[in-house]
This record gives sequence, C-alpha cells and structure tokens, in this order.
Amino acid sequence: MTDDRPLVIVSNRGPIRFLRDASGERVVRRGGGGLVTALSALTASRPLTWVASALTDEDAVVAQEGVYEDGGLRLRLVAHDREEYDRYYNVFANPTLWFIHHYLWGLALEPSVDRNVRLAWEAGYLPVNDRFAEAAAEELELAGERAVAMVHDYQLFMVPDGIRRRLPHALIQHFTHIPWPDPDYWRVLPEDIRSAIHGSLLACDVVGMHTARYVRRFLRCAEEFAGAETDVGAGTASLGGRTVRVRPYPISVDPAEFRRLARSPQVRAAATTIRAERPEKLVLRVDRTDPSKNIVRGFAAFDLFLDDHPEWRRRVSMLALLDPSRPDIPEYAEYVGAIQRAARAVNDRHYDADWQPVDLRISDNFPEAVAAYTEYDVLLVNAIFDGMNLVAKEAPLVNRRDGVLILSENTGAYAELREYAIGVNPFDIQQQANAIHEALTMRPAERRERIRGIREQVREHDIAAWIAGQLRDL
Amino acid sequence: MTDDRPLVIVSNRGPIRFLRDASGERVVRRGGGGLVTALSALTASRPLTWVASALTDEDAVVAQEGVYEDGGLRLRLVAHDREEYDRYYNVFANPTLWFIHHYLWGLALEPSVDRNVRLAWEAGYLPVNDRFAEAAAEELELAGERAVAMVHDYQLFMVPDGIRRRLPHALIQHFTHIPWPDPDYWRVLPEDIRSAIHGSLLACDVVGMHTARYVRRFLRCAEEFAGAETDVGAGTASLGGRTVRVRPYPISVDPAEFRRLARSPQVRAAATTIRAERPEKLVLRVDRTDPSKNIVRGFAAFDLFLDDHPEWRRRVSMLALLDPSRPDIPEYAEYVGAIQRAARAVNDRHYDADWQPVDLRISDNFPEAVAAYTEYDVLLVNAIFDGMNLVAKEAPLVNRRDGVLILSENTGAYAELREYAIGVNPFDIQQQANAIHEALTMRPAERRERIRGIREQVREHDIAAWIAGQLRDL
Repeated sequence: MTDDRPLVIVSNRGPIRFLRDASGERVVRRGGGGLVTALSALTASRPLTWVASALTDEDAVVAQEGVYEDGGLRLRLVAHDREEYDRYYNVFANPTLWFIHHYLWGLALEPSVDRNVRLAWEAGYLPVNDRFAEAAAEELELAGERAVAMVHDYQLFMVPDGIRRRLPHALIQHFTHIPWPDPDYWRVLPEDIRSAIHGSLLACDVVGMHTARYVRRFLRCAEEFAGAETDVGAGTASLGGRTVRVRPYPISVDPAEFRRLARSPQVRAAATTIRAERPEKLVLRVDRTDPSKNIVRGFAAFDLFLDDHPEWRRRVSMLALLDPSRPDIPEYAEYVGAIQRAARAVNDRHYDADWQPVDLRISDNFPEAVAAYTEYDVLLVNAIFDGMNLVAKEAPLVNRRDGVLILSENTGAYAELREYAIGVNPFDIQQQANAIHEALTMRPAERRERIRGIREQVREHDIAAWIAGQLRDL
Repeated sequence: MTDDRPLVIVSNRGPIRFLRDASGERVVRRGGGGLVTALSALTASRPLTWVASALTDEDAVVAQEGVYEDGGLRLRLVAHDREEYDRYYNVFANPTLWFIHHYLWGLALEPSVDRNVRLAWEAGYLPVNDRFAEAAAEELELAGERAVAMVHDYQLFMVPDGIRRRLPHALIQHFTHIPWPDPDYWRVLPEDIRSAIHGSLLACDVVGMHTARYVRRFLRCAEEFAGAETDVGAGTASLGGRTVRVRPYPISVDPAEFRRLARSPQVRAAATTIRAERPEKLVLRVDRTDPSKNIVRGFAAFDLFLDDHPEWRRRVSMLALLDPSRPDIPEYAEYVGAIQRAARAVNDRHYDADWQPVDLRISDNFPEAVAAYTEYDVLLVNAIFDGMNLVAKEAPLVNRRDGVLILSENTGAYAELREYAIGVNPFDIQQQANAIHEALTMRPAERRERIRGIREQVREHDIAAWIAGQLRDL
C-alpha cells in the first residue's frame, strides 16, 4: 500500500484506556479485537490519530493533560459531562437507535418519543457528537489537508455533518457496523431526527456498510428522508451538488490473532476444563446478552430438537457463553431474565441427574470463549439481525473438531459464508431444531469441506483486506 | 362506464350474511360499508359474482344449497372446516400477517415460527386459499372468458396463484387493504412462505395498493423474494415472461351514505345524548381495539397535554369509541387490558369529581360513532401504521363543528389529506400533545378552510372513483 494519507479515526471507544492501580500508578490497557490490531499496524506507514471518548476517570485526566502519544499513534480523548453521556449512550444510542437498526421494538407499546428521548437527542446525542466533530476537525487540520476522517458507527452519526460544517473540503468516511434498516422502521423517529441523521451521512464522501443489502437499504432511506438522487447500481447518492459513494466493506478478523490466542496458556487451560466436562457433542453459542442475538429462541430450538430426537439425550449439551451487555439499560436487564428463565425451562423439562442439557454461563471470559471455539461440534449463530457477527468468522478458524456452523440468514456474515453454513431463519425454531440435528449427523467429509471453505473465505478476506479496501476507495 | 366485463369479487367476508331468527326463519343481513354499496351499484351495468366464506351456521346451509342469487348479485359461499378456518384466520392471517404488515411484533421474543405457525400455513391458510381459488375459477369460467377476478386482501394472498394454475389466461387483480411492509420485516416468515406469497401476487395482471409508498415497498419485495425485474417509475414487475402492473388506488367512502346516516333517527338520538354530556370541547377517536391503532399512546399524549395546559382542565374530554376486535387472539385481548389501564391512569392522575378526562367506551355501536363524528372538535387518528384509515375520511364529511383532524404520517390517508390535517409521528407523544393544543386553539377560519379541503378531496375521490380507476386499468 503506497498511500500514506494521515488517518483520523473517530470512534466512541478508543484503542487504549487508562486506569490507576492500587499504588496509584497509571496503567495503560490496550483494547483487544482485530480492528485495533489492524489499525495499529498502519502506524508503521502513516500518521494515525484516534479520537475517542474518555470513559474511565483516568481517561478524563489524560484528556485534560492534552493528547497522548504512543509510537505512531496520537490519541485524543474527549471528555463528556456524565449526564450528557448517559443520555447519549444509554438512551439515544442504546436502546433507541440500536433497537431501530435491529427491528427490536414492540411498536404497539414501545418506544414513545417523549421528553426523555427528546432530551437524549438534544441534550445528549447532539452535543456529544458535536464535541467529537470539533475534536476531529482540529485533528484533521493538524494532520494536514490530505488527512482522512474515518468515523465509526451509530453512536456518531452526526459527526460527519459537524466536521463538514467546520471543514467544507475535508475527506470524510463513515462506517456503520450494524444493519441498516428499511425506511419504514426509521419512522419510529420524528421527521427532524431521521432527516438529520441521513443528512449528516450524506455529508460524507464515502459511506461504508458491511453488505450490499445494507447499502441498498441506506440508499432507499437517503431518497426517502433526505431527498437524495440515488443510483443503486453505481452505489451513489447525490444531494446538493455532492455525490456520496455508498459501499459494502464486510468487516473481518485477524486470523493470526486467533491462532496466537488458541495457543495461549489461559485458553489451553480453559479448553482442558471444557474437555473434562463435555458430553460427546457440544452445541456452542457465544454472544453478548443482547436481544438481537436471539438467545431465547436458540434454547427453544434446542428444546424442540431434544423432543424430536430423544436418542441424543445425555449425548449433547448446549453451551451458552454470554458476555453481560449494557446492564444499565432496562430492556437488556429484562432480556437477561428471559434468557435465564428459558434455559431453566429446558433443563427442567429434560431433567436428568447426570446431564445438563443447557449450560448457561453469563460472564465476561474471553479465554473460555476461545477455548470453546476449539471444542464445539456445532456453532449456533441465530441472530435476529446482526451487522456482521464475527463469532461466525472467528470460531471456525481455531475449531479442532470440524464443527458445523448454523448461521442466521439475517447476519452480515451470511452473505459470505452461506454456502459453507446451514442457513436458518432466526424466527423459525423448528428449522433451527432440524439444523442442529443435521449438523450433528453430518458426514465427516462434508463437515471438513465446509469448515475449510469458511477458513479460506476468512483468511482471504481478513481485517487487513477490510481496511485496505476502504483506503483504496478514499 | 361502458365496460361491461363480468366481475368476480373474492373476499373473505361477503356482502350478505344469513341468520335464523327466533321463529326459525332465514334472515338476510346486508353488510354495511361503502365497498358493498359501491360494488352492489355495479350490478346494474354488468354481472357481479361474489365469492366469500360461509361465516355463520346459516351461511353454511346456503353454501350447501348452491349459489344464492339476489338481483344482479350472484353469491357463492365457500364453507370451511372449523379448525382449518381457525388456523387460517386466527393464527396465520391474524396476528402473524397482520403484525408483519403493521410492524407490530416485538421481535426479541415474538413470534416464533413453530409447528403452530407451520400448521396454520399448511393446514389452514393454504387449503382455505385453495378452496377460494377453486370456487373463483369455477365462477370465472361460468362468467365467460372476459370475466375479471378481483381478489381482496391479506387473507387471500395465495388465491391469484390458485386461479392462475387452473385458468392460465384469466384476468386477475389482487388488492391489499393494509400497508405493504419493507423487505426486512417479511423475513419474519421463512423463505418458502414469503416467496410463495410474493410469487402468488405476481401471478396477477394487476396488483393494487392504497398508496404509492406501498407500491414501492411491494416492488422492492418482489425483487428480493421472487427475483422479479421491477420498474418503479412505470409501476411494473416482470417475472417468467409476464409483466404485472402494480398501482396505487386509494380507497375511499360513499359520502351520500354518511349524509343519510347522519340524518337517521338512531344517530340523531345518540348525538343528542353526546351533546347533553359533553364538555366545551371534545377530542374524539374511533377505532377497533387493534394494536396498530395506537390507542395507548393517544391517552398518554392527552395526559401530557393536560399537564402542559392545565387551563384546559374540565373544559375538554377525550371520547374513545372502540369497537372490540379479534377477541379470540391473545395479542388483542392483552391490548384491551393495556387500553383500560392507560385510560384509568389518565383519569386517576387528573381526578376531578365533575369531569372525566378520558371517556372510554368499548362497544360495537356504529350509530354512536357517527353521532360522535358530528360532534367532535378534534379528531385524533394516530395509527402506528394503517393501510388507509377511513375514519379520517368519513368523520369530516358529517362533522358540524369544523373539527380539526390530527393525522398520523403512517396512514394511507395522510398521502391525500396531509395539507388539511395536523400531521403527527405516531410514536411522538409530545408532538401529539402539542397537536391537541394547536387544534383546540386554531382560528375558526383556518378550521373551516381545512375541513372544507378534506371534504372536497373525499367527494372528488370517493368509493365510486376508486372502483372506476381499477376497472379502467383492467
């Protein structure tokens, strides 16, 4: 890659957070994940600035001190008022926007756009986004006129507009990591809000989505809410004399990172424990406790499977490793209750002193999750709607049992992996029950061939390719 | 209209139903509503056949006797197995399809496509639709080769395909009376079902919807689920060498019928009662107890309005006349509970011995509804999504107080009446509260001008125009 334009990454969560240890010393924690790794690798070839929220108390101290520099990385932390941030994050971005993007509202009764949501927009989302835009614009100016802003996700929809107002000639990209919903569902938000969001994204030069389906959805919305002229074939939206390119860039993972992780002592220890406890076959799911992940229907499907195929009693368990998510949001707290009830119902219905059908573990334990990746026979990814779903890409890379992937047709990953997975409709629990049986009884040669297909696809389209594709288009 | 093609109307509910009175004599009850009136008027100029379900016990007797003839109308009643009809109507058509078309599912937990829904499709919706198609095909053959089938609504999506298979050269129209949802929300149904539904509609010659928005939605779905080539500008979808025209025909009412009704003794008596009891101003809503109608948020908006404008205490009431709907469907029964709780909450919060803020009446009382049409100062139509909403067209025709219409942007009627109404987002209860205040304080001249606009629009585009437009295109 010969391009060396300076990059200014803008995302709510940064690559590094700061804490103080017991002795009062500052501790630097690097964020995990392929995105941070891949972007950090870019610092070798070009200047990289990252603008992110100050999330810890020590982050706020660092923010006050000015900019933090580490090798080729320049980190600009933005401090927010606590109440403003709460409205922005825990009311407007989640659950309001998240539930719209994933079609999760039960619209007969929820949500109501009331003073609470209005405040969350006007005295939360807008000022936080504007503070980001101001910091990003300053960093873009410092980085020089060839610099590119890469703004991330649904927390920061209003940032492109804020940068454009300050720097009319800036080069701006926004990438949305979650699905783009159809126009009607955006109508949950009042006209001024949905128009402002689409108008801001049309202030970009490039708008990125995971899949061609989301690109089409976005273009329809840009027509309907911002009056843009669109060309679906060309992937463009034009408004006010500007033309925005709207492109699919399917995000991926760093295969080397997962090879390393799988060989780490913590993961090997966790894998030993799983092997000691596991029955003959293991159906695995690894998710956050998010209503979009469809955990309750997954248990219902396993329940149906056990009813339909009693010959599998005591021979197979479903291991559900769930990372607690957004506990400050009532909809999430309630969903954890529904998950627990559903798991208990399956275990009670199929009670056996020597066998636990569903093994539900709600905890943040990444080494255990990677260990389980190596051990599954069936991986269930049945999300209701999911921007990409990286579990479907990560786990097959390190699995040691030629495990079979069951994959929801409403995940972004389905566009790339459908021919290697057993596709399911996330609402059809009978189909998911049948898929579990099909996966458990699939011939070894076919299992091997399918998992090889997934690995090849992921290795050829890894996180580096995702970033390279975007930089090429800029 | 010089065209005299014979028409075969196919709808679940027919224009006439049969009962037995106390003495055992057969009684014929004509269905009300503009559609029956307008279609019946056609019998003067052309043969009219109507195929409908036998719904009463006496209907089943008539069905067994053969075809019932009355003037120019030939009525063919189709008898169904009771359990099959229950699956078709109370599980698949409602709530499953209805909730999809109106975006009402809370997808985190509902619905699950399980044996219940599968059975409702395979042993309910499909056989009932096929029995309709068989009867319709027979009637089309009897009516001659110039005959046209006009199939109605979401209960009968599979009828066009059933007719086409029997009569490859038949002329078939299907009209959907409810909104057409965006593609993603159709994904609640498994691939085979959503494809079959769209494939069947593409077996028509003309597909009718209420508005241009629904036409666009349908064309997107036809691309995505049936692989049709579409031309949104021309309103066509092509598949397998056939081209289907997809057209907006906004349904309307019969103004003469409402003039007559308003003068009838029952309506005048009911109006006298309302006048005797009413406070200075009346905010009216008239709806079925359907979750799509947004009754609970309407009460919440009235509550907010009273908080914001205490000067209106004791001077204004909200009269909610609600026709009980689909009591055999759990989601509907629960929604009635939510309605009652919400009304009680408003009345308790604003308690006053001499004044009832919300007057909730759940009963089937059409004369009372028409009487209330004459008496309102503000008419609240805040539906979440609504194919057309005829209340918004009917009530202003007979209102005597230059009442102001508050109208949800997600009703079909909004496309025609937006400039004369106060438009609201149905989720935005603050906006609805503000709209109530704006309507109550609007200058008399503006009220008069707006209601005149509605009346002119409805009179110029009445139910006869709706039918004439469709017949012209056939």
